[in-house]
Amino acid sequence: MAGNSIGELFRLTTFGESHGPALGGVVDGCPPGLALTVEDIQQDLDRRRPGQSRYTSQRRETDEVEILSGVFEGETTGTSIGLMIRNTDQRSKDYSDIRGKFRPGHADYTYWAKYGRRDYRGGGRASARETAIRVAAGAIARKYLRESLGVQVRACLEAMGDIRIERRDWSGVEDNPFFSPDPDRVPELEQAIDRLRKEGDSVGAQIHVEAQGVPVGLGEPVFDRLEADWGKALMAINAVKGVAVGAGFQSVTQKGSEHGDEMDASGFLSNNAGGVLGGISTGQPLTASIAIKATSSIVTPRRSLDIEGNEVSIATKGRHDPCVGIRAVPIVEAMTALVLMDHYLRNRGQCGLRRGGQ
Amino acid sequence: MAGNSIGELFRLTTFGESHGPALGGVVDGCPPGLALTVEDIQQDLDRRRPGQSRYTSQRRETDEVEILSGVFEGETTGTSIGLMIRNTDQRSKDYSDIRGKFRPGHADYTYWAKYGRRDYRGGGRASARETAIRVAAGAIARKYLRESLGVQVRACLEAMGDIRIERRDWSGVEDNPFFSPDPDRVPELEQAIDRLRKEGDSVGAQIHVEAQGVPVGLGEPVFDRLEADWGKALMAINAVKGVAVGAGFQSVTQKGSEHGDEMDASGFLSNNAGGVLGGISTGQPLTASIAIKATSSIVTPRRSLDIEGNEVSIATKGRHDPCVGIRAVPIVEAMTALVLMDHYLRNRGQCGLRRGGQ
Amino acid sequence: MAGNSIGELFRLTTFGESHGPALGGVVDGCPPGLALTVEDIQQDLDRRRPGQSRYTSQRRETDEVEILSGVFEGETTGTSIGLMIRNTDQRSKDYSDIRGKFRPGHADYTYWAKYGRRDYRGGGRASARETAIRVAAGAIARKYLRESLGVQVRACLEAMGDIRIERRDWSGVEDNPFFSPDPDRVPELEQAIDRLRKEGDSVGAQIHVEAQGVPVGLGEPVFDRLEADWGKALMAINAVKGVAVGAGFQSVTQKGSEHGDEMDASGFLSNNAGGVLGGISTGQPLTASIAIKATSSIVTPRRSLDIEGNEVSIATKGRHDPCVGIRAVPIVEAMTALVLMDHYLRNRGQCGLRRGGQ
Amino acid sequence: MAGNSIGELFRLTTFGESHGPALGGVVDGCPPGLALTVEDIQQDLDRRRPGQSRYTSQRRETDEVEILSGVFEGETTGTSIGLMIRNTDQRSKDYSDIRGKFRPGHADYTYWAKYGRRDYRGGGRASARETAIRVAAGAIARKYLRESLGVQVRACLEAMGDIRIERRDWSGVEDNPFFSPDPDRVPELEQAIDRLRKEGDSVGAQIHVEAQGVPVGLGEPVFDRLEADWGKALMAINAVKGVAVGAGFQSVTQKGSEHGDEMDASGFLSNNAGGVLGGISTGQPLTASIAIKATSSIVTPRRSLDIEGNEVSIATKGRHDPCVGIRAVPIVEAMTALVLMDHYLRNRGQCGLRRGGQ
Repeated sequence: MAGNSIGELFRLTTFGESHGPALGGVVDGCPPGLALTVEDIQQDLDRRRPGQSRYTSQRRETDEVEILSGVFEGETTGTSIGLMIRNTDQRSKDYSDIRGKFRPGHADYTYWAKYGRRDYRGGGRASARETAIRVAAGAIARKYLRESLGVQVRACLEAMGDIRIERRDWSGVEDNPFFSPDPDRVPELEQAIDRLRKEGDSVGAQIHVEAQGVPVGLGEPVFDRLEADWGKALMAINAVKGVAVGAGFQSVTQKGSEHGDEMDASGFLSNNAGGVLGGISTGQPLTASIAIKATSSIVTPRRSLDIEGNEVSIATKGRHDPCVGIRAVPIVEAMTALVLMDHYLRNRGQCGLRRGGQ
Repeated sequence: MAGNSIGELFRLTTFGESHGPALGGVVDGCPPGLALTVEDIQQDLDRRRPGQSRYTSQRRETDEVEILSGVFEGETTGTSIGLMIRNTDQRSKDYSDIRGKFRPGHADYTYWAKYGRRDYRGGGRASARETAIRVAAGAIARKYLRESLGVQVRACLEAMGDIRIERRDWSGVEDNPFFSPDPDRVPELEQAIDRLRKEGDSVGAQIHVEAQGVPVGLGEPVFDRLEADWGKALMAINAVKGVAVGAGFQSVTQKGSEHGDEMDASGFLSNNAGGVLGGISTGQPLTASIAIKATSSIVTPRRSLDIEGNEVSIATKGRHDPCVGIRAVPIVEAMTALVLMDHYLRNRGQCGLRRGGQ
Repeated sequence: MAGNSIGELFRLTTFGESHGPALGGVVDGCPPGLALTVEDIQQDLDRRRPGQSRYTSQRRETDEVEILSGVFEGETTGTSIGLMIRNTDQRSKDYSDIRGKFRPGHADYTYWAKYGRRDYRGGGRASARETAIRVAAGAIARKYLRESLGVQVRACLEAMGDIRIERRDWSGVEDNPFFSPDPDRVPELEQAIDRLRKEGDSVGAQIHVEAQGVPVGLGEPVFDRLEADWGKALMAINAVKGVAVGAGFQSVTQKGSEHGDEMDASGFLSNNAGGVLGGISTGQPLTASIAIKATSSIVTPRRSLDIEGNEVSIATKGRHDPCVGIRAVPIVEAMTALVLMDHYLRNRGQCGLRRGGQ
Repeated sequence: MAGNSIGELFRLTTFGESHGPALGGVVDGCPPGLALTVEDIQQDLDRRRPGQSRYTSQRRETDEVEILSGVFEGETTGTSIGLMIRNTDQRSKDYSDIRGKFRPGHADYTYWAKYGRRDYRGGGRASARETAIRVAAGAIARKYLRESLGVQVRACLEAMGDIRIERRDWSGVEDNPFFSPDPDRVPELEQAIDRLRKEGDSVGAQIHVEAQGVPVGLGEPVFDRLEADWGKALMAINAVKGVAVGAGFQSVTQKGSEHGDEMDASGFLSNNAGGVLGGISTGQPLTASIAIKATSSIVTPRRSLDIEGNEVSIATKGRHDPCVGIRAVPIVEAMTALVLMDHYLRNRGQCGLRRGGQ
């Protein structure tokens, strides 16, 4: 397979290019009986959508999802759920300037080398637009996890370039376009974006994600560890260059006497593990951070090659976010929910009604 | 499945507990005609084996691999390759002290919660001993990659606790028990290990891994990106808490004008991407770093619970490495080789003789 | 997963109910560079479509397929191909008569027992209408197989009830609505259908399928044998109750001296094997026959239960084929092409350019 | 992958050649807490073993299975179960007579064409000896199914060549070497075998298999139908040329009013469906028949080619069964159990405690 599926029991398969007729996906294995409407999905999609503030891309995609199957009389039937989002804002602009050139930091060169061709319109399959359907599928997983198990998945901005957000107040995260958990830092973030726009440059970001209420016992011992499948899912988000679970890279300098989380009658006394030991969830919150590289499309001219091997200079015009990392927040949540949902069903399959398998 | 397989076309499935009769695995999908002997595999196994220096565990496992199938007259036949390593140094010691207790930082609690039981002898399935068979399988993949494609996979110590190795001289890596790429730092590392032993503590490590000569075009666009599958494979190594590809977490503070690798007629001018763009290899070296937590088994007493929920104090005696990270080097190489081999075959399957599919 | 995918490297995933908004699917792993238009697919869809003669269902579905992704400038890009067919002829009729009842021979009872609910409109996910998307995906596989490898996949009617077609003249198969390879028997088939309509009954059918030009070497030795994966694909067609490869059930009475196909310098001297030995294609034509049960929806009243467990009588009105087996011909071809395409890519992945791997 | 795995949640992966050091396999996903000893497995292995009567091969394999992992203190732990059977009776005989020749009806030619080489000793990977490990794994599945769900899987001889066994008395099946459900026909079967031995020929067989007590709701609607996965598993047994579920090929001539199983308050009134409707189990007994071709190894000389393409004559000496189909009985049961176990866990994963998911 060409790698467009994720999950074993709860599986998402996607299709679609940035400027093709539509994006879509199939959610396979959803338990029957989950109440589901378009609005349940649209809510999360709207959080990912660009064009909502002047700090993200000004492209306007309505991103209206359609449920094509698998839901009957307001509930999931247990059969595969087809999802589709028509591409509407496909400006019929002239792509001749990038058509035969490899933009630095983009997948232009690798697609061309692998397939001998590429859909150069707006990034084609490599466009972050593809993640819309992941958010749609993730919304289904999140709803089940929340309603059946009380699991809450959420993410927020942890850093944008040099600006690190130390405070973490979840209550305000949804009220600012940066998903910043410290509202007081928003003006600073705004100024940084304005400066990047002026400079014609972009910057990276760090996102924190966590899941509360995860049952103990999810994940498998060897290869399909919960953190391994989660790590893959997060690393499979466009532009992600690093994933750290729990104490992450701080584990390198931690002593064993510091890192290993002790327990007493009240439960775990710390969470350096990030909620997973030996590949299996501990019942503590799952926590991770991811590093996202700067937007590759910038107006600053850069050196590259064209298809014939000639040296060229490329400056990308267009409606691009100076920090794509910001909009990754709902995507990170979605990927997390997909992984948890899959491992919940897998555990229930093998272990049934054991303590961790509920 | 309970997650004991990795790879799609080139797939490893493993079994075995630390103190059971044997470890083993099945390598499925190996191309026919690869010259293969026990010695080819044993070489890599010996690099992973404990008991080779006083800086790692003093347990003595001979770790002699047996090829049970799939090789005929010195060459792979194309059918599944059975591998087995008998467990020989299973001291029939008394495990009653940890039998009913959950050791901090270990998988004791999660296995027990998931399965309602656990093989408590030496960590059972959660033991790092399980990785021996990954190294054995990785040796097969490495041999094919090296001989058929000229790919070289190698790893080294990047940090042990606070000691960061800045110099990277590959020539000396195999000559010291720390896989340190700077031989001058070895005495410092030795002293640190001695100090940890005396303190009854342990420490984390950071490992660098890279693959040279990787063909352009390996990896899939969306979920099965090369870095995602690689990230999963690395995160699936015991004690790994973080994975960073290319510039990794430095991408957070890098500007777009700095991160995006430019090209001229000579090729790429930098490698912040770590050899992968849009999920597909660029032909540059693949590079990554991983964070490994400190050994959880330490003699310093720690608070925990027993199966009945009583508070207990645990101090682990035994033959444990003060820094398990060191011995991860051959494992990291093996997991990297397994992922590359799988994606090489996958690409050849879909794209045949295209440029990237050779 | 809930079983809506087939194939490993060339994989189809489908969604859609008979009376939902749309049917659709994702074709993953198609090699890049295949010229592909809607017409290429529509041609096969039109052969499956009901309402084309008075001998099949009079329901009129236009079945217009839309390619939503994976094709650019007239060629496949190597990324996933999204396919969709809008359901147009969904009569908003009253389903209250079957809503709470289990129709004999249908999946009503099993869906309800498994999922606790079912989309009762026109069979929902269990409707043969779902196979339209298989035919669409199969058309892509067939085109690649034909153009790149010279493989020809074709099927025809072998029996309808008691009428067995002994002659096999492929030239006329497409010219009659029964896909009969003996045009002289068509009047007899017409009369039988008319008689069944009058009686309010239905009958089963036997379909023959074969693939010419299949390269030697496709298929895997143990579980994923070519005939096993093919057998599964055929058995996964609605209403199929039996699959026989090569000599099939005649193998039971054949002696070894009769069954085993001899070879001389000209090649194989017979084909009792049906083109596959030890799970791997021989290069001879692949041949199989399948048994398809009679249409379950008949006007003759039948005993059954309703959801509350009450005994009821059911007579299905509507536009049903007296012999669904006839329309299975293009579906059988499609499933065959999907399996061959998958195994072609799998073989190329593992064995590259070996003789059998071309 | 090279096709050596079967099942999704309960998965068997195998390795081993007829004359290599050992056969083995990994059973992944077994629920924890199943009491399991070597004897539980050995029992079924002994039923498959040759050399037990003069009517089957006189080769003597002790076939002693070893459990290498996944069982602790007499119970499954939930981790992967390693199984191994050492090959002991490998006569170091001279294979030079068949080494470079393609035996008719065997996989010699296809292996050679696919892989460019083959292990010619005793059939290598294509040997029916490989099925021993399937029987071992199937014994685990059968034990779980029987003890946890009350499912009983059993098979018997339905025909050997022209001799059809009409009576089906399960009580005597295990008491004769033919697994004949009619003990009165045993002398006739004995005479037929003796005659075949004298003629230097062999003959095919038909096996009936059924599973009683299967819960309603197992199987998936579209591709992974219960009968499709079952059909694949049966077709993946060496020498099987046909699979028929329920009424099988009799469905072709059955009218709809005859085939569709009616229900009244007592349940289903017939079982033409063979226990599965729409891909999902009905709760009735699953029933199927399979056709097995005659043993290919016969002493009667046959025409074939050698590797260089020269015409040769081949007469296979050795210890071969005149009817391999007889010994398929335990294999058929094992494959059936593996499929049911997998679908039981899959259904429990997706549908949890619904009626069909128990």
